[in-house]
Amino acid sequence: MDSTNEDALRRELAEKQTAIAAQADVVKELKAQGAAKEIIDATIEALKALKAEKASVERRLQIVILSNTAYQNGNAFINKDAFRQAVVNTLERRLFYIPSFNIYGGVAGLYDYGPPGCGVKSNVLAFWRQHFVLEENMLEVDCPCVTPEIVLKASGHVDKFTDLMVKDEKTGNCYRADHLLKDFCKDKLEKDLSISAEKAAELNHVLAILDDLSAEELGNKIKEYGITAPDTKNQLSEPYPFNLMFQTSIGPSGLSPGYMRPETAQGIFVNFKDLYYYNGSKLPFAAAQIGQAFRNEISPRQGLLRVREFTLAEIEHFVDPDDKSHPKFPEVENLEFLMFPREAQVSGQSARRMRIGEAVSRGIVNNETLGYFVGRVYLFLICLGIGKERLRFRQHLANEMAHYATDCWDAEIECSYGWIECVGIADRSAYDLRAHTDKSGVSLVAQEKFAEPREIEELVISPVKKEVGLAFKGDQRMVIEALEAMDEREAMKMKAALESHGEVRFRICTLDKDVTIKKNMVSISKERKKEHQRVFTPSVIEPSFGIGRIIYCLYEHCFYTRPSKAGDEQLNVFRFPSLVAPIKCTVFPLVQNPEYEQVAKHIAKLLTTAGISYKIDMTGTSIGKRYARTDELGVPFAITVDSTSSVTIRERDSKVQIRVTVEEVASVIKEVTDGQSTWTDVLYKYYTPAPALVSEEDE
Amino acid sequence: MDSTNEDALRRELAEKQTAIAAQADVVKELKAQGAAKEIIDATIEALKALKAEKASVERRLQIVILSNTAYQNGNAFINKDAFRQAVVNTLERRLFYIPSFNIYGGVAGLYDYGPPGCGVKSNVLAFWRQHFVLEENMLEVDCPCVTPEIVLKASGHVDKFTDLMVKDEKTGNCYRADHLLKDFCKDKLEKDLSISAEKAAELNHVLAILDDLSAEELGNKIKEYGITAPDTKNQLSEPYPFNLMFQTSIGPSGLSPGYMRPETAQGIFVNFKDLYYYNGSKLPFAAAQIGQAFRNEISPRQGLLRVREFTLAEIEHFVDPDDKSHPKFPEVENLEFLMFPREAQVSGQSARRMRIGEAVSRGIVNNETLGYFVGRVYLFLICLGIGKERLRFRQHLANEMAHYATDCWDAEIECSYGWIECVGIADRSAYDLRAHTDKSGVSLVAQEKFAEPREIEELVISPVKKEVGLAFKGDQRMVIEALEAMDEREAMKMKAALESHGEVRFRICTLDKDVTIKKNMVSISKERKKEHQRVFTPSVIEPSFGIGRIIYCLYEHCFYTRPSKAGDEQLNVFRFPSLVAPIKCTVFPLVQNPEYEQVAKHIAKLLTTAGISYKIDMTGTSIGKRYARTDELGVPFAITVDSTSSVTIRERDSKVQIRVTVEEVASVIKEVTDGQSTWTDVLYKYYTPAPALVSEEDE
Repeated sequence: MDSTNEDALRRELAEKQTAIAAQADVVKELKAQGAAKEIIDATIEALKALKAEKASVERRLQIVILSNTAYQNGNAFINKDAFRQAVVNTLERRLFYIPSFNIYGGVAGLYDYGPPGCGVKSNVLAFWRQHFVLEENMLEVDCPCVTPEIVLKASGHVDKFTDLMVKDEKTGNCYRADHLLKDFCKDKLEKDLSISAEKAAELNHVLAILDDLSAEELGNKIKEYGITAPDTKNQLSEPYPFNLMFQTSIGPSGLSPGYMRPETAQGIFVNFKDLYYYNGSKLPFAAAQIGQAFRNEISPRQGLLRVREFTLAEIEHFVDPDDKSHPKFPEVENLEFLMFPREAQVSGQSARRMRIGEAVSRGIVNNETLGYFVGRVYLFLICLGIGKERLRFRQHLANEMAHYATDCWDAEIECSYGWIECVGIADRSAYDLRAHTDKSGVSLVAQEKFAEPREIEELVISPVKKEVGLAFKGDQRMVIEALEAMDEREAMKMKAALESHGEVRFRICTLDKDVTIKKNMVSISKERKKEHQRVFTPSVIEPSFGIGRIIYCLYEHCFYTRPSKAGDEQLNVFRFPSLVAPIKCTVFPLVQNPEYEQVAKHIAKLLTTAGISYKIDMTGTSIGKRYARTDELGVPFAITVDSTSSVTIRERDSKVQIRVTVEEVASVIKEVTDGQSTWTDVLYKYYTPAPALVSEEDE
Repeated sequence: MDSTNEDALRRELAEKQTAIAAQADVVKELKAQGAAKEIIDATIEALKALKAEKASVERRLQIVILSNTAYQNGNAFINKDAFRQAVVNTLERRLFYIPSFNIYGGVAGLYDYGPPGCGVKSNVLAFWRQHFVLEENMLEVDCPCVTPEIVLKASGHVDKFTDLMVKDEKTGNCYRADHLLKDFCKDKLEKDLSISAEKAAELNHVLAILDDLSAEELGNKIKEYGITAPDTKNQLSEPYPFNLMFQTSIGPSGLSPGYMRPETAQGIFVNFKDLYYYNGSKLPFAAAQIGQAFRNEISPRQGLLRVREFTLAEIEHFVDPDDKSHPKFPEVENLEFLMFPREAQVSGQSARRMRIGEAVSRGIVNNETLGYFVGRVYLFLICLGIGKERLRFRQHLANEMAHYATDCWDAEIECSYGWIECVGIADRSAYDLRAHTDKSGVSLVAQEKFAEPREIEELVISPVKKEVGLAFKGDQRMVIEALEAMDEREAMKMKAALESHGEVRFRICTLDKDVTIKKNMVSISKERKKEHQRVFTPSVIEPSFGIGRIIYCLYEHCFYTRPSKAGDEQLNVFRFPSLVAPIKCTVFPLVQNPEYEQVAKHIAKLLTTAGISYKIDMTGTSIGKRYARTDELGVPFAITVDSTSSVTIRERDSKVQIRVTVEEVASVIKEVTDGQSTWTDVLYKYYTPAPALVSEEDE
C-alpha cells in the first residue's frame, strides 16, 4: 500500500480546504465592503483556481486509494473485484463449485465441489500423497471427525477456540466483532476523502492491531466509532467469545458431548505411542492425515476461503528436541523464494528473495527440519501451478505465535482477497504430546538408549514428613506436594536460603498462601547417578495445508482471458498444469459423421484403458466453440478427429497443433500428462508446420 | 443352518426325556412293591441305557448347533470366533486399525485407520474411481457432511431414520431392542438343549421376522421372554424410537438445526438440475460421491462392521423411467455368480449360480441398468480379492424394500459375522427427486424433445366453481382440489357414474368425509393435443458401497496362516492382490553391511520415483523373521539385497524367488504390481531353479 503518498495527498487536500475557506471569507468581506468589481472578480477567480486544485488533489487521492485495490494479472493491472467476479462466474458456471443446498436457499460457508472441482481436488490430494507421504515414507492415518470432548479439552479447543461476536440488540443477528471494525476502517479509508492524515493513520493502526484486541478493547472501539449492525443500524451488544466448534452428542444417552474436529492433528497426537512403536521406536518420523475439518464460523464470507467445512492435509513430524537437523536438507537448501521474516515486517520492509539454506544458517528459520518443510511446501505449491511471485513465506510475529511454539511460517498466496494463509508450518515444541500426556495419564514419550551408560546429576528433594506434619497438620499433603514440585532453580535457591537463614517463606499455590519452611523440614541435594537411556517428549513440526484455499488461489493464478478470433468476446482459460487438470483431454469428431464418431469412441476406449480422464463431445457445435468450452475447464489437450487414420492434438495455451496416428494418440497424451515428456518434446517429434490442421475459425 | 436335523434331534431328545421319566417311575414302583432283585436290576439297566441314548442325542444336537457357528476357511472348517480373533489380533497389532481415542478409553463405534489400513482404503477408493467414475464417465461431486434440517426432512431421515431403543430402568443404560431379543433367541437356541422343537421353531421364527416388528410387538416379546438389561438384570423400558443422526447447530444463533449426513446421496439429488445441465441436458448419466457418513448407533458392536462414522461411495444413475436399457449390458451379461432371488428365499431354497443376462431376461432382475450395475459390482469386488463363493447378490423381500423402490439387490459377503450387506443396488424410482421437488419447490425434472410433435390424449377435469361453491360453501376449495387430483382411473369411473346416475359419493381425504358430487359440478373429458416434448422425473438407480465393510470382509477373505519352517508357530499372511496391498514391496539388505545398505537405499529411491510404496528394513533381524513381518502386512513382494549387482524378489504366497539386476528391479515390481504383467509372466522370464537364492531358514 502506497501510504506515504496517500498521507501527503490527504494533508494537501486539508490545506486546500482551509485555503478555500479563507479565500471564500475574503470574497465575502470584499463584497460587504463594496469593493471594486475588478478586485472582487480577481478574488473569485483565485477561489475557483483553488477549488480546481482541490478537485485535482481529490482525483489523485482517489487513484492512490483505488490502486491499492487494483490487481496485477500477468502484466496487466485490473480491478480486483472485477477480476474475482470473472473467475468466480466461470467457476460457478462450469460447476467447479456450487453453493451447497442451493435449491433450499443454501447455507453460508458450505460449498460442493462439482465434477471439475472434484477432479482438481483429487489430483491435488494425490500429488500431496506422492510428494509428502510416499516421498518421505510418512505414516498415514485416517481418524474420525466425531471427537469426544476430553480430547479437545486437552488440546485447548473447548476453552480457547473462539471468535468474538456481537449481536444486533433487536434482531439477534450475529456478527464477528473484528470484521465489523475492519469493514468500518477500510470503508472510511477508501471512501471518505475528507478524513485527516492523522485519522487515516489511526484507522490504519487499528487495522494492524485488530487481531490483538481484547473483547473489551474491541467493544470500546465499536462504541467510539459508533458502529451499528450493518443490516438494521441497530445497537450492538458487547463482544463475547463464541466457540467455533460444531457440538454434538455421542451415543443415545445425551451424556457424552462431542465435537466435529476443528483440525485433524489431534487424531495423530493421541496415536503417538502406537505410531512410534510401528516405526520401530525410532525418531524422527512423520505421520500424515487428510480429512474433513469443521469450524462453525459466525458469518462466513470471502467465498471459498472461509468456509464451515473444509479438507485439511496435516503432517506431524516428530523429532528429538535436541537434534532438529534433517538429512535431506541439502536437497532443498538452494531453493530461493520470497521470505518475509519477523524483523522485515516489524521494520516496514517488504518480503525479499532468500535462499532457504541461508535463512536456516543465519538463524532466521529456527532449524533445518522446519526449513526442509518450508522448501518442500514451496516445491509442492509451484508444481501445482501457484505463481512464484505471488507466493511468500511469512514468519509469525511474536504476538501471533502460541506461547509454546518455537517458530512458525505461513505460506501465503496472493489473490484478489490479498495475501492468504494457505499452509502453516510450525515448530510446536512438545506442547501437544505433553497436553495429552497430562490429560490422559498415558505417557507419550520417546526413549534414546545410550550406547554407554551416562552419569547425570539429579535433583533430590526429600520433605521430612514428620516435621511438616507437626507444623502444617491438615495442610501437610499440599505443602509436601509443593516442595516436591519445585524445579531446579527454585530448589537450589531454597537450599541456599535455608543454609544461610535457617528458614524461608514459601508460596503454596494450591492453598493460596505463604508458609514458613524450616531447615529440618526438607533436605535438598544433587546426586550423581548412571542412566542407560534418555526419556523425552518429542518436538513436533507441523505443516498444515488448507486444501480448499490452495485450490481457490490456484484457480485465480491459472485464470486468464483472451479475445476470440472474431474479437467480439473474451474467452476464459484455466492454464492448469496437466498434474492438476481435472480432465486431461477432450475428443471431438470434427464434423458429425458416423465414421469419425466411431474413431472418437475407439480413442475414448484407449484413453480409459490408459487411465486418462477425458470428455467426449459429439455435438455439431463448431470446433472453435468446442475448444473454448474445454479451455474454460482447463483441459490441456484436445484431440480432433478429422480423418479415420490420424488425428490432431491441440495444446490449450499455445493453440499449436500436431498430427498423430489414431493408435498412438493415447500414449502421446499419457506421456505428456504423466510428466514423462514435455509438450516441447512432443512438438519436436511430431510438429509439421504445414498444411494447416484444424482451423479454429470461429473462436 | 441344518434346521431339519436340529428339529428331529430336539424331538428325539424330548422323547428320550419322557421315556427316562417313565422308566424311572417303573423302577420306583417296582422297588416300592418289593419286586425281585433281578427284575429291578434289569429295569435299572434299561434306564441306564435310555440315559446313555439321551446323552448321545445331546452330543449330536450340540454338534449340529456348533456346526452352525463353524466356518469354512479354504478347505478347513474352524471355529468362527477363533478365526475372527486371529484376524482382528493381527489387524490391531499391525495398526491396520486402532480403536479411536484409545488413550482416553476409546469411544464405541469409532476407529482410526492406521498406516496399512489407510493404504488399503486409499487403494480401494482409487480403484473404485477407476472402475466406476472414469470407466463410465460419471460426474463426481463432493458435498459437505454438515446438512441443514430441511434437506433431511425432505429425504425422510428426520422422521424415519430411527432404531428402537430400550433403557435400563435404573441405570439409564441404552440398548437396541431388537439386538436384545436377537441375543436372547440365539442364546437359547445355542445353549439350551432342553427346549422343545416347537419352542426352537418359535424362536427361529422370531429371528426371521425381527426386522418387521413394531415397537409394541418388540416390547411384548421382551416382556413375554422376561428379557432384562444384560449388565444389571434390571427391568427395561418400553421400546421407543431413537433418531440415529448426530445433531448439531449451524451458525451462532442456535436457530438453524443441522445434522451430520447419514448418507452422501442427498448431496447429489439436490444438485440434480445443475448436473443434468452439465451433462448437456441428456439422460442417462450418473453422479458419484465418496465421503464420510455418520450414524449415532445406540450401542455399536461387530467391530468394523457397525460404526458411527464411515466412508460411503455412492452412485446415482439417472435414467428415463420408460427406458432402463443399458448400452454396455452385453459386456457383463455372461458373468455368472451366486444370486439369491426373493422367491428362493421365501421358498427356503439357497442362493444359486446364475448368469446375470438370464436373470434380467427372465425378469428376476427388474431391468438392464440395474443388472449392469450388479455385474459391475461383482467385477469390482472380485478384483479387490473377495472370494467368489462367499459373495452373493440377495434380492430384497417385498417387506424389506421401501414402498417406492422398484427392485433392490444387496451384494452380501460372508464373513465370520455371517452374510454382511456391503453394497446395496436399488432402483429407487423417482422417489428422491420428487421428494426434493415437493419440499424445495424447484422442479427436478428432465425433458425429452420429440423429433416430431406427438399427439397425446390428456385428461381434463374442470370443476364448475359456482355449483361446487353453492353446494359446499366453506369446503369449496378442498372439494375442487380433490376433484382435480383424481387420477385417470378414478376420473373415468366418476364420469361413468355421473352419466348413469347423475350423482356419486366422493371421499374428500382432506376433510375426512364423503360428499355427493352432482353431474353439473364437474366436467370430465379426454382431449387430444400436440406435445413437443415430454417432461418427466427421472428414475434413479443407486449402487451404494460401505467401504469399511468391504475392507473388513476383504481382510477376512485374504487372511490365512501357515506353519513356520521350524513348525513351532503359525505365521499370519494377508494374500492381498497387488491392487489392494498397502505396501507393494519391502527392501532388505540380507546382512547389515554398508555396501548392501547403500544398494538398498538406491533401490528405495528408484521405487519412489516409480511411485511404488515400499518399506525398508535395515534391522539385523533374520531374513525369515523379516519375511514373516511383511507377510503380516500383506506385502506381495520382498526385495532382498544379497549382492551389489543383483537382488532377489520373493513372492509372498508361493515364496518363490527370482533374481534380477539392481537397475531393473523397480521396473519389474512396477510391471507386476500395476497389472501389466502377472507374476507367472515374470517367473517365466527370470526364474532359475538353482542355485538356491535367499534361504528362509528360520521362518
